[in-house]
Amino acid sequence: MPRTILILNGPNLNMLGTREPEIYGTETLADVEASCRARAESLGLAIDFRQSNIEGELVGWIQEARTTAAGIIINAAAYTHTSVALLDALNMCDMPIIEVHLSNIHQRESFRHKSYIARAADGMICGIGSFGYELAIEAVAKRLDGGK
Amino acid sequence: MPRTILILNGPNLNMLGTREPEIYGTETLADVEASCRARAESLGLAIDFRQSNIEGELVGWIQEARTTAAGIIINAAAYTHTSVALLDALNMCDMPIIEVHLSNIHQRESFRHKSYIARAADGMICGIGSFGYELAIEAVAKRLDGGK
Amino acid sequence: MPRTILILNGPNLNMLGTREPEIYGTETLADVEASCRARAESLGLAIDFRQSNIEGELVGWIQEARTTAAGIIINAAAYTHTSVALLDALNMCDMPIIEVHLSNIHQRESFRHKSYIARAADGMICGIGSFGYELAIEAVAKRLDGGK
Amino acid sequence: MPRTILILNGPNLNMLGTREPEIYGTETLADVEASCRARAESLGLAIDFRQSNIEGELVGWIQEARTTAAGIIINAAAYTHTSVALLDALNMCDMPIIEVHLSNIHQRESFRHKSYIARAADGMICGIGSFGYELAIEAVAKRLDGGK
Amino acid sequence: MPRTILILNGPNLNMLGTREPEIYGTETLADVEASCRARAESLGLAIDFRQSNIEGELVGWIQEARTTAAGIIINAAAYTHTSVALLDALNMCDMPIIEVHLSNIHQRESFRHKSYIARAADGMICGIGSFGYELAIEAVAKRLDGGK
Amino acid sequence: MPRTILILNGPNLNMLGTREPEIYGTETLADVEASCRARAESLGLAIDFRQSNIEGELVGWIQEARTTAAGIIINAAAYTHTSVALLDALNMCDMPIIEVHLSNIHQRESFRHKSYIARAADGMICGIGSFGYELAIEAVAKRLDGGK
Amino acid sequence: MPRTILILNGPNLNMLGTREPEIYGTETLADVEASCRARAESLGLAIDFRQSNIEGELVGWIQEARTTAAGIIINAAAYTHTSVALLDALNMCDMPIIEVHLSNIHQRESFRHKSYIARAADGMICGIGSFGYELAIEAVAKRLDGGK
Amino acid sequence: MPRTILILNGPNLNMLGTREPEIYGTETLADVEASCRARAESLGLAIDFRQSNIEGELVGWIQEARTTAAGIIINAAAYTHTSVALLDALNMCDMPIIEVHLSNIHQRESFRHKSYIARAADGMICGIGSFGYELAIEAVAKRLDGGK
Amino acid sequence: MPRTILILNGPNLNMLGTREPEIYGTETLADVEASCRARAESLGLAIDFRQSNIEGELVGWIQEARTTAAGIIINAAAYTHTSVALLDALNMCDMPIIEVHLSNIHQRESFRHKSYIARAADGMICGIGSFGYELAIEAVAKRLDGGK
Amino acid sequence: MPRTILILNGPNLNMLGTREPEIYGTETLADVEASCRARAESLGLAIDFRQSNIEGELVGWIQEARTTAAGIIINAAAYTHTSVALLDALNMCDMPIIEVHLSNIHQRESFRHKSYIARAADGMICGIGSFGYELAIEAVAKRLDGGK
Amino acid sequence: MPRTILILNGPNLNMLGTREPEIYGTETLADVEASCRARAESLGLAIDFRQSNIEGELVGWIQEARTTAAGIIINAAAYTHTSVALLDALNMCDMPIIEVHLSNIHQRESFRHKSYIARAADGMICGIGSFGYELAIEAVAKRLDGGK
Amino acid sequence: MPRTILILNGPNLNMLGTREPEIYGTETLADVEASCRARAESLGLAIDFRQSNIEGELVGWIQEARTTAAGIIINAAAYTHTSVALLDALNMCDMPIIEVHLSNIHQRESFRHKSYIARAADGMICGIGSFGYELAIEAVAKRLDGGK
Repeated sequence: MPRTILILNGPNLNMLGTREPEIYGTETLADVEASCRARAESLGLAIDFRQSNIEGELVGWIQEARTTAAGIIINAAAYTHTSVALLDALNMCDMPIIEVHLSNIHQRESFRHKSYIARAADGMICGIGSFGYELAIEAVAKRLDGGK
Repeated sequence: MPRTILILNGPNLNMLGTREPEIYGTETLADVEASCRARAESLGLAIDFRQSNIEGELVGWIQEARTTAAGIIINAAAYTHTSVALLDALNMCDMPIIEVHLSNIHQRESFRHKSYIARAADGMICGIGSFGYELAIEAVAKRLDGGK
Repeated sequence: MPRTILILNGPNLNMLGTREPEIYGTETLADVEASCRARAESLGLAIDFRQSNIEGELVGWIQEARTTAAGIIINAAAYTHTSVALLDALNMCDMPIIEVHLSNIHQRESFRHKSYIARAADGMICGIGSFGYELAIEAVAKRLDGGK
Repeated sequence: MPRTILILNGPNLNMLGTREPEIYGTETLADVEASCRARAESLGLAIDFRQSNIEGELVGWIQEARTTAAGIIINAAAYTHTSVALLDALNMCDMPIIEVHLSNIHQRESFRHKSYIARAADGMICGIGSFGYELAIEAVAKRLDGGK
Repeated sequence: MPRTILILNGPNLNMLGTREPEIYGTETLADVEASCRARAESLGLAIDFRQSNIEGELVGWIQEARTTAAGIIINAAAYTHTSVALLDALNMCDMPIIEVHLSNIHQRESFRHKSYIARAADGMICGIGSFGYELAIEAVAKRLDGGK
Repeated sequence: MPRTILILNGPNLNMLGTREPEIYGTETLADVEASCRARAESLGLAIDFRQSNIEGELVGWIQEARTTAAGIIINAAAYTHTSVALLDALNMCDMPIIEVHLSNIHQRESFRHKSYIARAADGMICGIGSFGYELAIEAVAKRLDGGK
Repeated sequence: MPRTILILNGPNLNMLGTREPEIYGTETLADVEASCRARAESLGLAIDFRQSNIEGELVGWIQEARTTAAGIIINAAAYTHTSVALLDALNMCDMPIIEVHLSNIHQRESFRHKSYIARAADGMICGIGSFGYELAIEAVAKRLDGGK
Repeated sequence: MPRTILILNGPNLNMLGTREPEIYGTETLADVEASCRARAESLGLAIDFRQSNIEGELVGWIQEARTTAAGIIINAAAYTHTSVALLDALNMCDMPIIEVHLSNIHQRESFRHKSYIARAADGMICGIGSFGYELAIEAVAKRLDGGK
Repeated sequence: MPRTILILNGPNLNMLGTREPEIYGTETLADVEASCRARAESLGLAIDFRQSNIEGELVGWIQEARTTAAGIIINAAAYTHTSVALLDALNMCDMPIIEVHLSNIHQRESFRHKSYIARAADGMICGIGSFGYELAIEAVAKRLDGGK
Repeated sequence: MPRTILILNGPNLNMLGTREPEIYGTETLADVEASCRARAESLGLAIDFRQSNIEGELVGWIQEARTTAAGIIINAAAYTHTSVALLDALNMCDMPIIEVHLSNIHQRESFRHKSYIARAADGMICGIGSFGYELAIEAVAKRLDGGK
Repeated sequence: MPRTILILNGPNLNMLGTREPEIYGTETLADVEASCRARAESLGLAIDFRQSNIEGELVGWIQEARTTAAGIIINAAAYTHTSVALLDALNMCDMPIIEVHLSNIHQRESFRHKSYIARAADGMICGIGSFGYELAIEAVAKRLDGGK
Repeated sequence: MPRTILILNGPNLNMLGTREPEIYGTETLADVEASCRARAESLGLAIDFRQSNIEGELVGWIQEARTTAAGIIINAAAYTHTSVALLDALNMCDMPIIEVHLSNIHQRESFRHKSYIARAADGMICGIGSFGYELAIEAVAKRLDGGK
């Protein structure tokens, strides 16, 4: 059975494709999930793709991942900048963790430059749109295969 | 003739593989170049891979890229955090630009959290080691193909 | 059928009338809802009046409002000062948005002077007690009628 | 004889309708005065509507209001952010005080986010254009009638 | 019937004993609850011991405590540093409130030095591990008996 | 012979019971010493209870404690916020150290929120009045018995 | 003919005795002038005692003082904290200058802790009520007599 | 009839030549006006040269300039650093605006490094003494002739 | 028997007349004491004039003053800016307290602009040299006679 | 032989006319040089016009200017904001130094508001496009002729 | 008789060799004194080597040095970062002063980066262990011999 | 063959003896080199003494030192405060590194108080003029001989 990557999406990402398309494009979250699934399968991996607007629910899913997943990809959206709880949950996970953002957060409002997630994640990929999720899967796969 | 991606490496990256291996690994810059070349070729692209310790020389190479390259990947190393001159040079380039860092700069000293490069780059990939260069090539290729 | 204004109340506002009456008075949230309904009806509008202690639930209601409401009035209470998620949700709503606070937040602890909601709202009414909700309904009605 | 509300307008508001119409609209200050007078009369109140570019003159008018007015509505414009003298004058007035701004000051340059007036005013109404003056009259009337 | 102390545990504390044992030890939250229950009983008190990852749920439990509990002990974990909503809820409770932290928060990352909870709590006990909960029960009992 | 806990009291604590009783109560420092002695004896421990207004004298006592005491409880009062010398002295002591404050220092002037002592102490107990000394003795005893 | 001290009073001081008497007492500015005149005469000096709410008028009076006065005593009130223009005017005066405040400005809001006047004045007397004016006259007289 | 440049001088500049000559020289404001008039005439322009110590009066003159002047040169002196009202007035003027300072403000006290005027002016000339006024006239003339 | 004013002098003031005479003059501390004694006697008061380099000794003298003195004049010198212990001691004294500084501390290094003493003192007199001590005695006498 | 002004241009200015024309216009650096040469000749001066992307090379040219030039005009571009080395070099030059910027640096990103060059230059001319170079030549000529 | 260098050691340095040996080594203060004496004698100088934990005592010794010593070497330890009193005392000494630290204070906690001593000392030697004392003696000797 | 110490000098140090002699004296860099060579030889060491104005060149020399030198002494001058690249290069060198400054950088402009070099250097010697180089050689020699 293939190893599974938990792919977590934070608040408002369920609206992808309908919100501020000049920043995020018209692709929906279902589209992103499909692309991720295809990419993961090509690498012999499965994905568990979820979204929640509730910080505590995201915390719970990360806690579960400790025993069910081989890696985590997380786009925490707004919670990136405000959630110590997500940071603490990720700190408990001894597996590859990659942080993803659709836009380049360093070019937006200054409060979006700070990421609590970055304190726990191995790496960050941002500003590459939804294709960044696919690259993150590559990065997790590489680490699972023993690469840095 | 394939389109060329200029891949720029900033100060001290010529020492890769010999410096602080616990952070950066033992791979040399020549190893990274070889991996990049292979990845680029698989995508029908060429690379122009350079390194300099001199800020002004890097500035000059970026200026040239305006007419010779289709995209830029830049690991500005220490100059990431101090060089407005590199920012100004990149701002003149109307092409995909991806910033790469071997380590997750958000986890190092606080002065490394700030990037002037990020103000001009489309995206950032960090904390994924030298494999991040390959992902950056994918990202540039994607954008050259019309993806975000 | 009258157009509807979504009126959102954040954490602890369900305790209105029982908490810190020297600041907020003895009126309950049900009282406020009744006043709002009467005022809205006099202007030919309906209201959808809700309260939640859970940030993510408030986010969800705002997302729904994009297709069900003609305007939003929001007293985000404590989340005013901490929630980027609410800001992101409001940014997706192309309709009049008025922020309300019972007390004058500029006269309380310094961390209450900053509002993420204010980045997305058209205007703010604060320090006028529950009557501020009624004025906010007037303001939304005015905008729906083409006034600024 | 009806009670009078002093409505004060700070520097450059005499240019209303001619300055930066994309922010403030084309209504003139005389138009605002007319709307205010009508609204006040409907509530059984009179208004004393003034404008000055000189900080000290505004201070003097507030001092006089202690014996001649029942409430104050103040749009101090630029002096909102710089005038401790206006704050001190308002602190001497034991009557309802409402601060008004045409635009949402929280969305403009950061030095406009701070208001000295807010330290003395009961409430603030901003971002609702000139209609905010009318709502402020409602708020003062409410307080004079014993509402919060 | 003995008076009850509500003992609240914030996000990720359900993982106690499995997360970062070098900081928090191997004791589970059930172990802590047992110790607390024994200590409370020895003082003629009951406890209501709860944990949630959801900020809004913790807010609701505090609201209920106003009529069901004689005191509150709260280890808000990550929400200590980010939740104004919890602060507002605690401010409504007129009873002894003691804040507990397993580790000495003043020795960890700087963002953990600030506590919103401390603005509402009578006292803080930190850095004494789970035994701090027992001391907090002593402190609440003392206050319920008329001691400071 | 019982092991001894050095209990240090900083400047002005000799005035306890006479100064600002609305904050600190009417209990004198001798009262506190008596309570501490009783509590320590009940745990099979002795105490060495001292007070000084002179920073350097407190430094000297801590230096001596390295060979004469099994643990330290310190209420450094004003020096909590200003004394690096006390911090350096405590850093030399390889034994349980608990910091005590009568009031909740997080609720007083902002310069009292910072504690140099907290950088060297295992834990802090504050806001529980003089009873906090007794809890601190419990905490030290627990640690001497092998608990965290 | 006796030498003259210009005594300047800033905005709102004309209301002395009517404003915030719990801070400033019930003495009027005319009372203060009388006390000053008596004290000055006892020292063989005359006074020129003025008040204005207008920053620019105060500036003009200081400019005149360069040729008409032997010393300046200034209570700039609100302009203390905001007026660089007054500072520049005072900097042109080569004579004793004493700054006076009725209350201790260091104990009020933080923006009142900063004084532009203090950059040009020889000394400051504050927190001694209107008697501070008399002491300031003593100080100027002393300096005119050759004392420091 | 030649086009007119309004040349505004802020507080204390009427004292030019008498104040702090080691910084500003011995030239009077009348001398500066004469030089400006000569330079303007040589370029086919007229000048309207004014000085005021009153912020509000300067604001009024700028408002008038909207219909009477072709360009503005402003040395706001102390108000450079404190006046949002001047900034707002200048923002209403759609014509060339050049800010002048006699000294290099970047070398004086830190509060003089910030200029509100610079937010509205096309350019700044400082540190060149009164000759800077003449260069500013050249700059305005150049812009009126279509140069940048 | 006359009432006594405790006059405290902090570190290095024993060197008065020998240190940095360009700032402090050539008068010795004994000279200052003599002037103070004469002035106090003329007002029917006695003085207790002391100096110490040791913060804790100054603290002790203030504690004693609670029962032996009718007022305190304190020039805490360097401890003005660093001693919370002196602040706490002064806070226990229910009597007139005047802070004195020989030089105008607002014109020296920025760390000398902050005074802990000012949080407890009724007023401050600075920049008037040793004559400021005499004025402070006047101020204390005035307050003891019932003046503000 | 005419005296020579060294005119230095920093990084990326060699691209003038090709980069961000909406900010800098279409004029090339050669065009600027030609205008400068004409202006200088009309004043009986020669120019030495140089550009480099390398900080150290600019440093060297300034060092040489000490013996070969009568004045310096410098547009350090990006190095304005980051180069202490250029500041140190300019500090060694006892001759007129004028800093030039094409755009008004006070209106761009906040990191461009700070200039190290301004600490060594007599004056600054900014926001007047390339015509600013000509005005700078006037300013240097004026100073060489004995004007301020 | 040889000239004497006063060598002062601040709080906790009496514990040298017993405290945190991984930072400071195992050498005792007596060892340091012996090395210093030998080095001084080889240069024809005597030393007066002292240590105190009491700030005021150190102040007193510096005051005495004005007449008894030819130079001062000071390792103020913790007081380096907190003592304005030591700074003021050193400012009175017109002789060579060298500041010494065993460790490189720039690499420790941020509050240790600031030195009040450095404002009065000619130079600083840090991070060279106790050998730094010997180098400091060399430096003082050099200055006494007329070298810089 | 003696071991070699690389002695690096940063920008503008080639002008030593000609620049700001009131700060740096009249000694030239060649003089310093001669003194260093003599001192090193007396200790059985050789030196490699270099200067560059180009940051990247200094970086390269440090890289080479990893295999050619036994220790590094670096006076990075202006680059001390701005160069992360030099820090990164030094971090690769596993040998004694001493930072030297001619003046006491803690007494100059605030931007000179921060040193990137200090993060990599074992120790710092500053404010002792060129004699500091000789002491640095002593320090390196000591460490090479096994002393701290």
